[in-house]
Amino acid sequence: MKIVIIGGVAAGAKAAAKSKRLVPDSKIDIYTQDSHVSYSACGMPYYIQGNFEDYHNLIIRTPERFEKDGIDVHLYHRVEKILPDLNKIVVRDLDKDIVFEVEYDKLVIATGAVPVRPNIKNIDLKNIFTLRRLEDGIAIREKLRKSKRAVILGGGYIGLELLEAFVANKVHTTLIERSQHIMSILDEEIGELVQDFVSTLYPERTKIITNDEVTEFIGEDEVNAVKTKNSKIIETDMVLVAAGVRPVVDIAKEAGIVIGKTGAIKVNSRMQTNIENIFACGDCIENVYAMTGAAVWIPLGSNANKEGRSAAMNLCGFPEDFEGILGSAVTKYFGLTISMTGYTEKYAKQNGYDPVTVMITKRDKAGYMPDAENVTLKLVASRRTHQLMGGQAIGCGDADKRINTLSAAILAGITAEELAGADITYAPPFSTSIDPLISAARILVEKLKK
Amino acid sequence: MKIVIIGGVAAGAKAAAKSKRLVPDSKIDIYTQDSHVSYSACGMPYYIQGNFEDYHNLIIRTPERFEKDGIDVHLYHRVEKILPDLNKIVVRDLDKDIVFEVEYDKLVIATGAVPVRPNIKNIDLKNIFTLRRLEDGIAIREKLRKSKRAVILGGGYIGLELLEAFVANKVHTTLIERSQHIMSILDEEIGELVQDFVSTLYPERTKIITNDEVTEFIGEDEVNAVKTKNSKIIETDMVLVAAGVRPVVDIAKEAGIVIGKTGAIKVNSRMQTNIENIFACGDCIENVYAMTGAAVWIPLGSNANKEGRSAAMNLCGFPEDFEGILGSAVTKYFGLTISMTGYTEKYAKQNGYDPVTVMITKRDKAGYMPDAENVTLKLVASRRTHQLMGGQAIGCGDADKRINTLSAAILAGITAEELAGADITYAPPFSTSIDPLISAARILVEKLKK
Repeated sequence: MKIVIIGGVAAGAKAAAKSKRLVPDSKIDIYTQDSHVSYSACGMPYYIQGNFEDYHNLIIRTPERFEKDGIDVHLYHRVEKILPDLNKIVVRDLDKDIVFEVEYDKLVIATGAVPVRPNIKNIDLKNIFTLRRLEDGIAIREKLRKSKRAVILGGGYIGLELLEAFVANKVHTTLIERSQHIMSILDEEIGELVQDFVSTLYPERTKIITNDEVTEFIGEDEVNAVKTKNSKIIETDMVLVAAGVRPVVDIAKEAGIVIGKTGAIKVNSRMQTNIENIFACGDCIENVYAMTGAAVWIPLGSNANKEGRSAAMNLCGFPEDFEGILGSAVTKYFGLTISMTGYTEKYAKQNGYDPVTVMITKRDKAGYMPDAENVTLKLVASRRTHQLMGGQAIGCGDADKRINTLSAAILAGITAEELAGADITYAPPFSTSIDPLISAARILVEKLKK
Repeated sequence: MKIVIIGGVAAGAKAAAKSKRLVPDSKIDIYTQDSHVSYSACGMPYYIQGNFEDYHNLIIRTPERFEKDGIDVHLYHRVEKILPDLNKIVVRDLDKDIVFEVEYDKLVIATGAVPVRPNIKNIDLKNIFTLRRLEDGIAIREKLRKSKRAVILGGGYIGLELLEAFVANKVHTTLIERSQHIMSILDEEIGELVQDFVSTLYPERTKIITNDEVTEFIGEDEVNAVKTKNSKIIETDMVLVAAGVRPVVDIAKEAGIVIGKTGAIKVNSRMQTNIENIFACGDCIENVYAMTGAAVWIPLGSNANKEGRSAAMNLCGFPEDFEGILGSAVTKYFGLTISMTGYTEKYAKQNGYDPVTVMITKRDKAGYMPDAENVTLKLVASRRTHQLMGGQAIGCGDADKRINTLSAAILAGITAEELAGADITYAPPFSTSIDPLISAARILVEKLKK
């Protein structure tokens, strides 16, 4: 069996390794236009920050290791076309600039996502970065260490993680966000709390501008300022554009592979596209919410790994259905943990649900423990079924523990009433005798009675 | 409505406060032979250790606060008899040494549990302590600070928490455990790991003796050595007896209240005993495992609080069924977290189940993060239904997050296959891209196929 995989960061690398274990005598080839495969993209902000020194730590599996396992990795090879009727792909060797065809029995598309490059004047000036490839991370880290001032466009996960990295390196940083609050994926009142924390932690070198956007980069060869819609001019030594990502679907689309309404590749529960022997996984695919079956595009490393594994299982003849995702995510800004799972209130409302919500702030541990900290928890449940639909938790306390307990509850479809009866581990260094998650569930139960 | 509550630590205090909120014009009286009500017994080891200085921090609600809320607290009043036919209790005022009767409409028994005092020669010597009441905690802390050597009998939760307190205070401590390993509530291989950690962390002042027990305390007025079955003589300045606890059920039993096979008071899902207007809650009652309905006695602060609340709801006419417990528990020994939920393998086997298990050790965070630590996770599932039955997690990494995610999964009755599809939050400072819990579930799925 000839398995060809396009892309090799998380999903592609996982699909390759798992397929080889499942069908050891298969021939497996990974094609990527990049210079590296199988690395932790999610770890780059921490490399940039300086939590560790060697970027090789981010590499999970080297091309040499793949070769040793019998998987051929073709770096600097761009797949330009898929020919489904011929079971072939057209590949360009970027080094030698030659084009050739490769046959496959099964094809896996794992082309991932790329940062959106907004149409802003002078965006091609030097020292304007996006973060996707390992080289981007290396270049940002290098430039950061020579910079005094920086501007970040976008206050989502990447923007916030890079803000931490920049501020930790004593760089005066201005983050510009178009929405009313940073972390606009969260509900407004949670995003507001995050923003308050971020703005006040190192105020001398952190500036958050919201409801504004960059309209022009200023500079000759290198960027040295940005201009915003509200006519602010902000001088800077470097710019990071973190204005979102989009799935890479062009060659798939051109080959007649169905794209979902989210703009990502549509697959069934077995990671199969509309073409039987073509699978797709990772940041380029549309998945479904496990609790509703509704299509959604949430590019996350956790999903990519699971989808890559699922693609391998199914293409190798071990059928297994993927239940969907919850969109569980976590990040931090210095001591503040920010985490969520499932639907936010606004997402639920936008999608026609009638949610009931509760938001509480409690200590994460017994109040007399010296390291007790706050955690703010918001729960979202369906008024109709009483089932939990989502939650958000932020705080310097242990927030992600509560979100993960909730994520299992949502996956299982349990109700607010059932969650109120949860048996959460308690000891003073770990929780309060009635855990915040249970307190919140109880209030939700009362609200649902009305 | 006259509500009388016997005992006021966790369950009793909660039942009183909640009842008052539900039925503000009820008359509520708490009777206790102790000197304090409403304190965090679970917090005493941390007070003893010196994590905070003032024991008043442990007090959740003072008698004055109760009085202010319209609840009468009678300290140093021992309830000697319950007269169910007359709806009365017989109370002895220990200060004045007088006996009187009190009428009730609803009675709540929250007499808790007391440490077992084993029948060992000279156990009444001075400086031999057990830990239950606040005064015990204060006395142990005081003696500890004047001691150079200590002996602890029993390596369960209390024994281990006090060992940390003693060792942290630079006291040379010998812990003597009858079983093969400390933390014998856990499966052997997990208990072994705990013991390895405990024995090697501060070896110069920590000695663990297993498969042995104290047969005699030696001393005139004060204890100055213990003698063991294996004829060891260990000199000491103080002894802590943490040889387990037993439910306080004597007056209940005498009044014809049914005691369960675990030795604790039998209640229905509404905290009601066999006598309609007598409720019971907290460490003195038998509960059931939520996943099997099997009777079990697990005295824990988390359960006590929930049961106290449940008793209040039901006796005040807001019927609500208690789903049962999972036995979720957590403690720590310095940096090592030890947590569990549901059935251990040995408990499952002892109770006639056919469990399938898996045990793995993984990093709790991305390996390149400088603070990544190990977590060892054991899962127990039913071979018949594939449902999760329990789990144990220990490690210097984030163990209790995994156990609480699992606890929600067990509560909901989900299978190993479903758990393998869990969507757990991932970012390098919080998890690995495939969380250890998912890795373990996947191995379980494979084992269940065989």
